[in-house]
Order: sequence, then C-alpha cells, then structure tokens
Amino acid sequence: VKATTIRAEVIAIGTELLLGDIVNGNAAWLGRELAAVGVNVDQMTEVGDNRRRIVAAFEVACSRADVVIATGGLGPTQDDITREALAELTGVRVVRDPDLEAALRARFAASGRTEFPTNNLRMADRPEDADILLNPAGTAPGLRVRHGNAVVYALPGVPREMREIFRCHLHDELAAVAGQGTVLLSRQLRTTGIWESEVSHRLADLDAELEAAGNPTIAYLASERGIVVRISAKAGDHASAAAMVDGVDARVRALLGDVVFGVDDDTLEGVVQRLLLDAGATVASAESLTGGLLGAALSTVPGSSAAYHGGVVAYVTAAKTHALGVSSDLLSARGAVDPDVAAAMAAGVRERFGTTYGLATTGVAGPTEQDGKPAGTVYLAVAGPPAGSDAGLRTSVRLVRLSGDRARVRELATQAALDLLRRRLSGLAEDPPPFSIRT
Amino acid sequence: VKATTIRAEVIAIGTELLLGDIVNGNAAWLGRELAAVGVNVDQMTEVGDNRRRIVAAFEVACSRADVVIATGGLGPTQDDITREALAELTGVRVVRDPDLEAALRARFAASGRTEFPTNNLRMADRPEDADILLNPAGTAPGLRVRHGNAVVYALPGVPREMREIFRCHLHDELAAVAGQGTVLLSRQLRTTGIWESEVSHRLADLDAELEAAGNPTIAYLASERGIVVRISAKAGDHASAAAMVDGVDARVRALLGDVVFGVDDDTLEGVVQRLLLDAGATVASAESLTGGLLGAALSTVPGSSAAYHGGVVAYVTAAKTHALGVSSDLLSARGAVDPDVAAAMAAGVRERFGTTYGLATTGVAGPTEQDGKPAGTVYLAVAGPPAGSDAGLRTSVRLVRLSGDRARVRELATQAALDLLRRRLSGLAEDPPPFSIRT
Repeated sequence: VKATTIRAEVIAIGTELLLGDIVNGNAAWLGRELAAVGVNVDQMTEVGDNRRRIVAAFEVACSRADVVIATGGLGPTQDDITREALAELTGVRVVRDPDLEAALRARFAASGRTEFPTNNLRMADRPEDADILLNPAGTAPGLRVRHGNAVVYALPGVPREMREIFRCHLHDELAAVAGQGTVLLSRQLRTTGIWESEVSHRLADLDAELEAAGNPTIAYLASERGIVVRISAKAGDHASAAAMVDGVDARVRALLGDVVFGVDDDTLEGVVQRLLLDAGATVASAESLTGGLLGAALSTVPGSSAAYHGGVVAYVTAAKTHALGVSSDLLSARGAVDPDVAAAMAAGVRERFGTTYGLATTGVAGPTEQDGKPAGTVYLAVAGPPAGSDAGLRTSVRLVRLSGDRARVRELATQAALDLLRRRLSGLAEDPPPFSIRT
Repeated sequence: VKATTIRAEVIAIGTELLLGDIVNGNAAWLGRELAAVGVNVDQMTEVGDNRRRIVAAFEVACSRADVVIATGGLGPTQDDITREALAELTGVRVVRDPDLEAALRARFAASGRTEFPTNNLRMADRPEDADILLNPAGTAPGLRVRHGNAVVYALPGVPREMREIFRCHLHDELAAVAGQGTVLLSRQLRTTGIWESEVSHRLADLDAELEAAGNPTIAYLASERGIVVRISAKAGDHASAAAMVDGVDARVRALLGDVVFGVDDDTLEGVVQRLLLDAGATVASAESLTGGLLGAALSTVPGSSAAYHGGVVAYVTAAKTHALGVSSDLLSARGAVDPDVAAAMAAGVRERFGTTYGLATTGVAGPTEQDGKPAGTVYLAVAGPPAGSDAGLRTSVRLVRLSGDRARVRELATQAALDLLRRRLSGLAEDPPPFSIRT
C-alpha cells in the first residue's frame, strides 16, 4: 500500500482571532476533517484583516503545501478582504459575479426588507479566476483558486457556513486525491456517563497492543458531549480497512459495555428519538434545574413531534404542584431536590400529556448549594412501562453527582436524563455506576 | 501621546492542534492578554512536533516580531522538543540545569511515588543561553531566549501553567515595554436583531472618519449571539482613553439605536433578568418550535427563579390546548403557526403560572415547511402590563422571518423572544424593522 501524502495548511483570517475575541474552533474542526480523509496538516496560521499580511501568508503556504484552506474575510464589511487578497495573490482582477448578485438580491427580497444594503454586494465579488463554491447555509460563497502547485480554498468564517461548504465541496474532492492507493477509515464510538480516565484505564492493554503494531489505532477525545473513542485503520481497500475497524470496534465495546451509545454523528437525543419511534412510544418532559434544556434536546431532530409531545418547566417550587401535581406536603417536607419529587414530576407530566413515558429532572445547578444539598446533586426519573413491555407502570429514579459550573451541570443533567430513558428503552441497567463526565 | 508599538507573534506547538484534537484556546487567551497590555499580535502559527518546522517557524517569526511567545512542547515525553528547537535556533547546546533537576526530584519525592521516571528529567533541560521562568502551577518551567532583535518566550501548553507563568513573568515585563506612556481600552457594544451589513452601513461614515484619524477605532464582530461593535482607544492615561471610548460609544448608539442591548460580557438573558428584577416582575414561557430553549435561556443566570417561574413546552398541537388553553377551533382553523395562537399561548401560560408576563414562541423550525408556511416563519408574543405600568393587560405579537438551519432558527427565535420582552420592559418599540441576523 503506497499512500499519496497530501500536505495542507490552514489560514484563519480575522483580527478578532489575534485579539482573542474568538477562539479558532474552525481550524480544529478542519484539522479533524482533514485527518479523517487522510490529508496531513503541517501548519496553521492566524492573520489579521491586513491585506499585505494575508497575501504573504497565502504566498508562503502555497510554496509549502498542496492544499491551502482559508477561513474568514468573506463577509460584507470593509474589513472582509480575502477576495481582494486572493486576486492579488494570483494577479487577477476582482469581478462582480452576476449570478451571485442575482441570488443575493433574491435572498434579500425574500427577507421582506426594502432597502438593499449595497455593502452586501461585496459578497457577489470574486477573483476573476476563482471557482464559486455555493454556500448551502448562508450568503457568502466559498472560492477556489490555483496558485503555483497549490489549490487554495477560501471559506467563510461563520462556523456553520464553513462546515457546510467543506462538506458539500471539499470533502470528497480532497478524499479522492488523498486516498489514491490507500483507504483511511475511522469510526468514533460515543460514550456517555464515564470518565476519560476510566475509559483509558479499561482500554489500556488494547491501546498498548495496537500502538505496538501501529495500525489500526485508537485515540480518546474528551468532547463536550462525552468521551469519544476514535478507531482508525489504513488499508489498500475499503473492505480491509472496514474489517480492521470492525474488529477493534467489537473489542472496545466488550471492554466499555453499555456506556457506548452510538457512533460518529450519533447524538444521545437522536438515539433516544429512534428508540422511541421504534417502540411506537412518546415522551413528555418535566424539568426543574435544566429549565428547558431537556425539552430542547428532545425536540432537536426534525420530525421529533412524533415522539416528543412537550412538557413542563416547573422552575419554582409552586409550579411543581400547580403544573405537575406534585404534593405540596412532600415538597415542604423534603424540598425540591428529592428522589420522590423527581418520581412525582415524571408521573405527573406523563399523565397530563398522555404520553408513554414521563422524564424528569430536579437538582442543584449551582453555583451555591440548595436545601443543604451541594451543587451538582441531581435526581432524574423516568415513569412508563417496564422495559420490553407496553403496559404497566414502573418509575425509576437515578441520583447523579455532577461537577463543573452551572452551565456544565445543567448540560450533564440533560445528558444523564436522556441516558436514563435510553437505558429504559434498551432494557439496560437503569442505575449503573455513578454517572460522571470529567469536566 | 506617542505609543511604542511592540509587535508580537504567537507559536503554538503540538501535533494535536493540527489534528484538531484540541482547540487552541491558549492563543486566544494570549491574544487578549497581549492586547490588554498594548502589544499588537500580528500573526499566530500552529506547528506540529517536528523540529525542522518548529525552528523554521521561530526563525520567520523572529525576523518580523519584537516578541515571540511559544506554547507547548516542554513536557517530559519524546515528542516535547521545544527546548531542542530553541537551542538549534540560537546555535547553543542543551544542558541539564542542576537546580531544576533537584527541584524535580524533590517534587517527585513529595508525591510519595517511588520509581522516578527518567523521562521527567527532560524538564530540567534548557538551551545553554536560556533564562528559566519558574512555573508556579506545575513542573515544566518556561524559558526565555534572545534571537536577533526578538525576545522569545517558551511556555508549557497546559493552559493553567501557561497562564500562571505569563502572569508571573511576562505580564509586567511586556506591559512595561509596550505601555511606555500608553493605555489601551476597549468596549464591546452588543446588538440583537440587526444584520452585520446593516450595522456596517449605518456606521460607515463614522468608521471612515475614525479610520482616517487612527485612534480611537471601531470594528465589527459577527458572533453567534448577534453583531458586536468593538470600540478601542489608546491614550496617555486611563481617563483620557475612557473619555475617547465614551465619545465613540455615544455616537455608535445614536446611529444604531435600540438594537444595542448591552456591553462586554452582557447577555440578552442577563439583561432581561435584570429588567425583570428591577421591575419586580416575573415571567413564564410557552414554547412550541423552541422546545425549551427559551426556558433554558431564562434560567441561565444564577438566582433566575426570582424572575422566571417556569413554563410549558407545547410541542404538539394538542398540548397547546390541554396545557395552555389555546382554543382548538382556532388551532384547527389556522394551524399552530399563527399570531393569534402565539398571543393565546402567552396569555395562557401567564394565567396558569400567575406571572406578570407570559412569553410565547410558535413557528416553523424547519427544515421543511409546515401548513404552507416556510421554515423560519416565527410568531412571538408577550402578554402582560403595558410598558411603564404594572396593571392592565397588553398582548403584542411580533412576526420574524429567520434564515439558517433548524438549530439556527430555534436559537434566533429564542433571542428574538427575549428581545421582545426586553423591548416591553424598556418601553421600546415592540415591532421594529424585521428581526434578522445574518446567518
């Protein structure tokens, strides 16, 4: 197997990066995507909205790399000058593209406003020699030019637009060039409710064995949504690489067990929705500390109204009684952060919304304690038929102790609630070892 | 006032940055710190654990800048090679520092472990010409060398250690050189509900005038939460710089009007909470397409239960009737995406939760249309006393047309709902020109 090595550089354009007003998440995202298609990134650069420096950065990157990907500087304002810098780089004029102008005007007209901001027309400009990469997520298109032996792609700095243009226009093109003779496959196993140190402890022997052989390999990534185990394999053809990935996948799952909830782009809310739809079941949410985050997660995926009917945010204690029917005696005896309160919230919302399941959260988001319970103390409850049945009622409560700041505790509590419903729907243990994610 | 301009570059070292396994938060942090002491960062670079490329990156940065700050590559493992690269850069040997070695061994002994990992001794190495910058937060010290006309600082990549060494050893040294007679102040004006192109259009003349004079200046940042206008000023003392910022602040507000909702770290939800508390008022949320995001926003800030009591996610149509009392005749005649439905949701949740205000969202999140209405069509409603009054009931509805994918539409709808309540509480126009944020 002879791998063609494609060398890439990334240039992020924008004075706000140099001032630290924003963190360069685009570069990291591109790094991951390029690695996944087998393209090596040698260097990344951040440069301000300064034409001379932008051109110089392009010039030097093109002298070293096969592929240069730039982000930023394609918006409508006067300091968005990537178009002009590219034209200077390749020695051509900037021209206004009539198709882009027509599309911009049509988009504007559809927005219902009357006075077209002429600045916007800058987004219809392109270097005369540039190919247009249409933007499925916004207004400013991407651009592609050649300079010397390098191909230069310029993408908008808005993360969502940058990603969509990459997916539509760059991904397959780069994978095709990089993959000649070699197939690099990777798969991410997504986990929830387990520490990174526990993952690495359980996989230590497997990791050492794989590292000694060199291919396939595993790596751990601590993401906002749980620890990810990435399996990568190189081979001469797709089937061989896939077989290698499958082999490691099975071994990792045997070691980690049911904390693995999905692969690659799977999300916990997407997995839960699929399980609900498969079971012909519905759910309603009853939230205290999460304040709506659980409902927002359950309604993330298009078409989620088939499974998620809605719910109640009972943020103050009185609302737990009037909107969910939790006994006020129970609340005054125990406070709101209590397993029986969680159970009553789940049962109450299930009854009021007429859904198969009710899913509830109550706890202390922080930063300070509440009723003598420390920040991060969270009770979750699910009420509905027992696993594998569609009749009967079983309510289970799970206590989790989460660390991190207020936002993190609320996010982790939401994930833990989704995981509880996943476990019920999948017939897994509903109170596994303490739920925690390293913060 | 004559400002001494110190030009800096930042070099972050580590293959994990190029693979996107971590985001380069260190660079952004350094960017902010350097801007605050009046040092201009011209360029940032990320390079992998490759000695030739690290040396080349140092060489070129030193040829352009007065100060070069590197992060990463100072740990104990074989791929930590910043020490060796610096020695190659300045043409000296790497030597083992006996004081550092003694400190390492003492630190290890204090940890209670028995077998000293010899790799750790790499952290006692330094280029022969390097000054040691002791690490108050960890093991690996920082290093300082001179090359050509530049001073090079090498700091560990662990964020906490990097920050502590910067604070102890670099901050005052750089501030002293950069700040000879100069104070740099900046303020961010945060807006909502206005396009970036519209901001730059309205500020074009002011921007041109300021740019011609050079100080103070304004810049625009498109963030996920709205467009930000940053005002920066340099002067010989704090009072003069503050007066310059205040002067531009007033001119920007005069041109942008009430779309400016706050400054610096203000958030829309934080501003709304403060307005509610100031008015002694409370709010409940009734959500359809936002699915809980509005409640989550209203409960973001610690102590928000004093103003936010909770709400209902009426995700399916039937829930709008059973949980909020919206007329089923109205719903079957008009569908759920309708101004009168929004108004009835706001009024219904206000009544059920007994709050001062009810705030409602209904609309089409997408990706597909609903009841003949295109994705992005959203009605928002607020029910409660008229502005400036605490009695009476006035319900107003705002139609917004949002662009972007499903997640973006839901997020923007949440922001627009918060903005509607902000406008009611502040006595501002409740139906300003169409709400939109460039996506």
